[in-house]
Amino acid sequence: MGTPTDLSPAARQAAGVCTADALAARYRSVRERSIELASPVSAEDAMVQSMPDASPTKWHLAHTTWFFETFVLATLPGYRVVDEAWQVLFNSYYQSVGPQHSRPMRGVLSRPSLAQVLDYRARVDARIADAFARDELDVALRQRIELGLHHEQQHQELLLTDILHAFSCNPLRPAYRDDLPVSHTAAGAQDWRRFDEAIVDIGIDRWPEQPAFAFDLESPRHRALVGAFAIATRPVTCGEYRDFIRDGGYRTSTLWLSEGWAAVQANDWQRPAYWRDDERAFGLGGVRAIDDSAPVSQLSYYEADAFARWADARLPTEFEWERAAQGVEVDGNFVESGRLQPAGDARDGLRQMFGDVWEWTSSSFLPYPGFRPWDGALGEYNGKFMVGQQVLRGGSCASPRDHLRASYRNFFPPHARWQFSGLRLAKDLA
Amino acid sequence: MGTPTDLSPAARQAAGVCTADALAARYRSVRERSIELASPVSAEDAMVQSMPDASPTKWHLAHTTWFFETFVLATLPGYRVVDEAWQVLFNSYYQSVGPQHSRPMRGVLSRPSLAQVLDYRARVDARIADAFARDELDVALRQRIELGLHHEQQHQELLLTDILHAFSCNPLRPAYRDDLPVSHTAAGAQDWRRFDEAIVDIGIDRWPEQPAFAFDLESPRHRALVGAFAIATRPVTCGEYRDFIRDGGYRTSTLWLSEGWAAVQANDWQRPAYWRDDERAFGLGGVRAIDDSAPVSQLSYYEADAFARWADARLPTEFEWERAAQGVEVDGNFVESGRLQPAGDARDGLRQMFGDVWEWTSSSFLPYPGFRPWDGALGEYNGKFMVGQQVLRGGSCASPRDHLRASYRNFFPPHARWQFSGLRLAKDLA
Amino acid sequence: MGTPTDLSPAARQAAGVCTADALAARYRSVRERSIELASPVSAEDAMVQSMPDASPTKWHLAHTTWFFETFVLATLPGYRVVDEAWQVLFNSYYQSVGPQHSRPMRGVLSRPSLAQVLDYRARVDARIADAFARDELDVALRQRIELGLHHEQQHQELLLTDILHAFSCNPLRPAYRDDLPVSHTAAGAQDWRRFDEAIVDIGIDRWPEQPAFAFDLESPRHRALVGAFAIATRPVTCGEYRDFIRDGGYRTSTLWLSEGWAAVQANDWQRPAYWRDDERAFGLGGVRAIDDSAPVSQLSYYEADAFARWADARLPTEFEWERAAQGVEVDGNFVESGRLQPAGDARDGLRQMFGDVWEWTSSSFLPYPGFRPWDGALGEYNGKFMVGQQVLRGGSCASPRDHLRASYRNFFPPHARWQFSGLRLAKDLA
Amino acid sequence: MGTPTDLSPAARQAAGVCTADALAARYRSVRERSIELASPVSAEDAMVQSMPDASPTKWHLAHTTWFFETFVLATLPGYRVVDEAWQVLFNSYYQSVGPQHSRPMRGVLSRPSLAQVLDYRARVDARIADAFARDELDVALRQRIELGLHHEQQHQELLLTDILHAFSCNPLRPAYRDDLPVSHTAAGAQDWRRFDEAIVDIGIDRWPEQPAFAFDLESPRHRALVGAFAIATRPVTCGEYRDFIRDGGYRTSTLWLSEGWAAVQANDWQRPAYWRDDERAFGLGGVRAIDDSAPVSQLSYYEADAFARWADARLPTEFEWERAAQGVEVDGNFVESGRLQPAGDARDGLRQMFGDVWEWTSSSFLPYPGFRPWDGALGEYNGKFMVGQQVLRGGSCASPRDHLRASYRNFFPPHARWQFSGLRLAKDLA
Repeated sequence: MGTPTDLSPAARQAAGVCTADALAARYRSVRERSIELASPVSAEDAMVQSMPDASPTKWHLAHTTWFFETFVLATLPGYRVVDEAWQVLFNSYYQSVGPQHSRPMRGVLSRPSLAQVLDYRARVDARIADAFARDELDVALRQRIELGLHHEQQHQELLLTDILHAFSCNPLRPAYRDDLPVSHTAAGAQDWRRFDEAIVDIGIDRWPEQPAFAFDLESPRHRALVGAFAIATRPVTCGEYRDFIRDGGYRTSTLWLSEGWAAVQANDWQRPAYWRDDERAFGLGGVRAIDDSAPVSQLSYYEADAFARWADARLPTEFEWERAAQGVEVDGNFVESGRLQPAGDARDGLRQMFGDVWEWTSSSFLPYPGFRPWDGALGEYNGKFMVGQQVLRGGSCASPRDHLRASYRNFFPPHARWQFSGLRLAKDLA
Repeated sequence: MGTPTDLSPAARQAAGVCTADALAARYRSVRERSIELASPVSAEDAMVQSMPDASPTKWHLAHTTWFFETFVLATLPGYRVVDEAWQVLFNSYYQSVGPQHSRPMRGVLSRPSLAQVLDYRARVDARIADAFARDELDVALRQRIELGLHHEQQHQELLLTDILHAFSCNPLRPAYRDDLPVSHTAAGAQDWRRFDEAIVDIGIDRWPEQPAFAFDLESPRHRALVGAFAIATRPVTCGEYRDFIRDGGYRTSTLWLSEGWAAVQANDWQRPAYWRDDERAFGLGGVRAIDDSAPVSQLSYYEADAFARWADARLPTEFEWERAAQGVEVDGNFVESGRLQPAGDARDGLRQMFGDVWEWTSSSFLPYPGFRPWDGALGEYNGKFMVGQQVLRGGSCASPRDHLRASYRNFFPPHARWQFSGLRLAKDLA
Repeated sequence: MGTPTDLSPAARQAAGVCTADALAARYRSVRERSIELASPVSAEDAMVQSMPDASPTKWHLAHTTWFFETFVLATLPGYRVVDEAWQVLFNSYYQSVGPQHSRPMRGVLSRPSLAQVLDYRARVDARIADAFARDELDVALRQRIELGLHHEQQHQELLLTDILHAFSCNPLRPAYRDDLPVSHTAAGAQDWRRFDEAIVDIGIDRWPEQPAFAFDLESPRHRALVGAFAIATRPVTCGEYRDFIRDGGYRTSTLWLSEGWAAVQANDWQRPAYWRDDERAFGLGGVRAIDDSAPVSQLSYYEADAFARWADARLPTEFEWERAAQGVEVDGNFVESGRLQPAGDARDGLRQMFGDVWEWTSSSFLPYPGFRPWDGALGEYNGKFMVGQQVLRGGSCASPRDHLRASYRNFFPPHARWQFSGLRLAKDLA
Repeated sequence: MGTPTDLSPAARQAAGVCTADALAARYRSVRERSIELASPVSAEDAMVQSMPDASPTKWHLAHTTWFFETFVLATLPGYRVVDEAWQVLFNSYYQSVGPQHSRPMRGVLSRPSLAQVLDYRARVDARIADAFARDELDVALRQRIELGLHHEQQHQELLLTDILHAFSCNPLRPAYRDDLPVSHTAAGAQDWRRFDEAIVDIGIDRWPEQPAFAFDLESPRHRALVGAFAIATRPVTCGEYRDFIRDGGYRTSTLWLSEGWAAVQANDWQRPAYWRDDERAFGLGGVRAIDDSAPVSQLSYYEADAFARWADARLPTEFEWERAAQGVEVDGNFVESGRLQPAGDARDGLRQMFGDVWEWTSSSFLPYPGFRPWDGALGEYNGKFMVGQQVLRGGSCASPRDHLRASYRNFFPPHARWQFSGLRLAKDLA
């Protein structure tokens, strides 16, 4: 594994390569963000596991810490793990590392307490700070820290969507924060952005061989032939989605994939996950009026696909999406905006490619040609999930801005609807 | 409904009939006991629902309070419930009162917080105290308080067995209390107590028509012809149960009821619920050596029945058990002993009829001849569960002493094994 | 085991004790009845297993044959079983005999064919006839044949109720027979038959120690104290049950056992199993108008219990039922009537105690005091099912007349509703 | 829809375009093949539905007939369907046509009988023959007949794999045919066929706009950039797969996709679906010695993927597979060989691309760029299944030869393992 030392500081920063000091600062900043995001949540809230797919806040805080302990600190001479038993409790799915506590049983873990988990974080953070100070971290370990921070950012988003799901199951419908701003921005008109057939470079060169961080699943960069297509200039809004509902979208079998129709029937789906029948919806700010201008979210893949069919369009492939996103600045409504909900965007032109809602693509989550998982246990990070899932692109109002990029691939099973997941239409060009 | 006013204070006390002052004192004492039992449990522990059959500690604390609020305070002029939404959250199963929060989803209720629930308790307790002070409570309401206290005592036991189950699902195996005493008392020999055929009075006259509290399911008192039988002088011990295991009890289909054998196969049962394969078992005091002299507990009905068959005996009927218990003092190892686990009893003669472990009987939970549920919503207390369950008798190390009596009927489905449930053998006399 | 040789032929016949010749004749007759009952059913029909609780016609024909082969022929010197593999296929639940084919997978057994099974029957019957002719059968084996015939009669009824269920799942709703007569008999008024408190002899002395056949579960004969009660002179009719439906019975939670209400909700029960929403019902004669005068059937225990509560009455205990049935002639609408559906009975007085519909009792299926299962594998016949089931009494329009008696105990789980199961009301007498 | 009339007869035949006479002849031939394939199966065998994913033989025979009746005959003036109720029973999943009998309940359909279904076939065939004779069929209807024949060929293969599954669930393990030949051909060595990066034409122009039949999902023909790769010259053999097993393949979590490992654990998979632990396997010829030279089959996608990882290779994409198959003659071990099991092929070079086993590809089943389902109800044929499935290519020993082509896309969910499904390795070329 080559070390990228021959870059100027500016170039390094541009490429995402941190000096040790910058990395240490970034470590502190990302780790503090997690604490900040968890701060509106009580120790009791932090316990709730409302479904097997979601995890308690406390578990997110602990697991991300376990990640640094296991993949960084445990490799340092003389390091003793904080608690042997926690190696099992907070291992998510790394078979190579060892056994795991049963995922659907994360909600029984009243012990360790949130206070203990916060102490665990503090101890690991202190030891990492020490390691930076003593220059104990070689390039490989610094890279693992870099990875650990991106890993933590993923869990920051899940922390938000999981606590939102937990609260949605409580009839009291508690607000994660009751001081969230209300957006008044109208959505501009939807137009189409056209692209001719081209051979496009997709993905990104493998990190850390190149210095800008990316997950293994985004590599290798490779060429793909992408036919002519048009893509909508903005995501589908709540107002547009309501038209679909009013037009009988949820009662028209021919609009749906077979599995999707079965899900509609079995679960009596009639609207997005957190919409109610009174023109209001539940979100991190509690129950509020639905903002017709905001991108619709909390959709399953089945719903996104059915809407697109109803609209006489289709979902974009992930390659089409990436092509459209190439060169677009990573700007928009991210977690940093403090809105924590999608919002309208009145501008013209291709917009909201990043932030607001993850956009379901028609692409299944599959390896790129020549894909190699990272070596060792970290090879379990992404590769083993490459079946039965669909790719989403772009990031959401719950994603950290510096976590995203045009090549970023998110993935969820098609029935998942507790994320800030929406859609952008696409269509063929003859 | 007649008022029992013509008894001397001593007679009233003996009969369990309280003066208003005595009832108010008893109210405070029982309510405080719940707080005391919950005190080793953190707010996070108090959240855990480890299976649909068990409830979080916090829910027990709230539901018992809801009981007093709904059935006593809400009938007082001008009373406003503390929170309308909680009427749904903390209603267990009273269809007549209104809708209920889904039972398997009690673990998502991070809100209200434990602190709020404790405050709820304090507010309801203060209002009840006020009502006593102002003499607002007529006989009927005082009787409902009496009932509410027995109801709360039932939940005190469940609070303990449910938190024990919750902790048993946490790989850290936290102890509810790590200062529980270890028993060193050997079990005396088992002998048989013989009874001739007789017509026996079973059950108890209906409360509150007579003043000593009893649940509706214990009435009416009625005569039954009980054939000659012998009953073991003490419950089966852990040591005896180990012999059953070593003799292949869990591998011998012919010892089991058909449903029981199916449960053994499906769940791979090999020993009582909290026994481990290292001669230790998990309990409220954490993981400890199995005490061979203590009555075995955490058995399903299937296991109790199979053991009895292996021992060439049978379970007693609930009438046989009650006949044997009639006249026996309610004395033994109850929650007040502070042991919180069954213990050996070296005495001779019929013993441990009360306390230590609930004893499975061969009787299904059915109405007594002439059974009438209480009027109104309280009629849902017991009667609607009279199918698919087996009767247990005697009380356990987690039961309050003054909650028990010879006529007391507990009931659980035959697969339940998270209670302090064991067995006492019986046999026919030719 | 004593041999009942000291009875006159008449006494023997009265007691059900057969001479070898009479037994051989009865063997032929019962075995032929099975073939006759299966004759309207094609080889394809005879394959269907429409739910795990039901068995294909072919399997009934084979299993009853296996019973004679296993428990009679296989004990004869030199006997070779027809097919070793069938010992597994057609063993229902006798763990002592050996492994069993998975019950819910009986519908995959296209092989052996119906023709092979009929041939199997013929070969076993021939060998049994031979054994009679050569006087190879000692008393014990003749008793096993007697038992086998009663066993076969039980399966004759199941053959009918199982094929009815199978046909009910076929949208074509095929009739088992389309030539069944239509009853025009009005039901007489319901009255009450009163009984004072008494000590009653329940059950029957153990067979074969006494010569009249009875299943082990009917023994030992024992005394029971039965309080004063009244029992309805006839079963509840379809017309009366429709009143319950129209009065909102299926929408009134307080009428139901908790488990029953859960079943109503989960399965959307709105009427008896084979009733439709057009005043017609499906039966062995196909879809026909509901006969308001006929006893209602295809009820679960939950429905019978809810109806009784709605009617301000209750179900009888099995002891009450047996007391009322003692001395009543076993007469009525049995399989021999050829109706194959319950029918009205215009007579006065206590009637329809036998035939028409099995009557759910409030008694759980439990062992009688002193119950001993038969020795050996046949001890698995009944005893191991003594949990989680309710007793039904009286027999139905699908039962053979000579299979029934006042002491006969049938049993099914409370949710079962594919039998000819109805109810007769009872009430307390003050 | 253009009519392909401007081709010479030879060109038409080459292109698969039939004259009416040729189509009528092909109709007879395909329809007779179904009868022939069903002929070793008794009416009872033809009833069995051994799992929800599989259908009874009889249902296949009826459904394929329903297809012609619904999509061809029902459009002719004056046609009366043979039985209205069968329109529901034999509709598989066409929501646009009307309601469907519940899929998992196909096994209860003893009526209509196999004889009736054969008569149904005869009547529909006669009417179709008539229509040909009277020249009632316009081009559009002739195209639907063409489609119906390919549809029937798909069901011919399912008929075989479904009856094989049914028989595999019968402990008697009946052979579909006991006269199947045993192969003695050794497998030649595996080599690699290399391909450079290229832009490749994938798929086929949309039928019926062009005359050679293809399913809608194979269209449109479009260009794709396929990187350099190598593909194995033959499928993986049973002998090679046994090495994987012996090397602990089924016990090594890191070889598996996460979902695959969960399936291994949950179902205790230890070998391919019909392999036994005695070096023998069950097949259409009964239980036979495993032929080490034959391609391994009855693998799930998970197993194919894990084997490839173990072999330090990967599965090909469907584009890679198609590229390799382009220009390869459709020759091999098909249903016409009468073997009905995969067999070794001792030749050199790229071989067994068609026949023997369907080859799992790493491609999810997704629409091609510009995909349009057929119009109307037939648009439900394929498009609505485009989620959660993987593509298989090449055809099997149970496929009709003239049903296959290089562009043919089969698809199954990744856990499916009752097909003749195996794999061929691929790898990247640097």
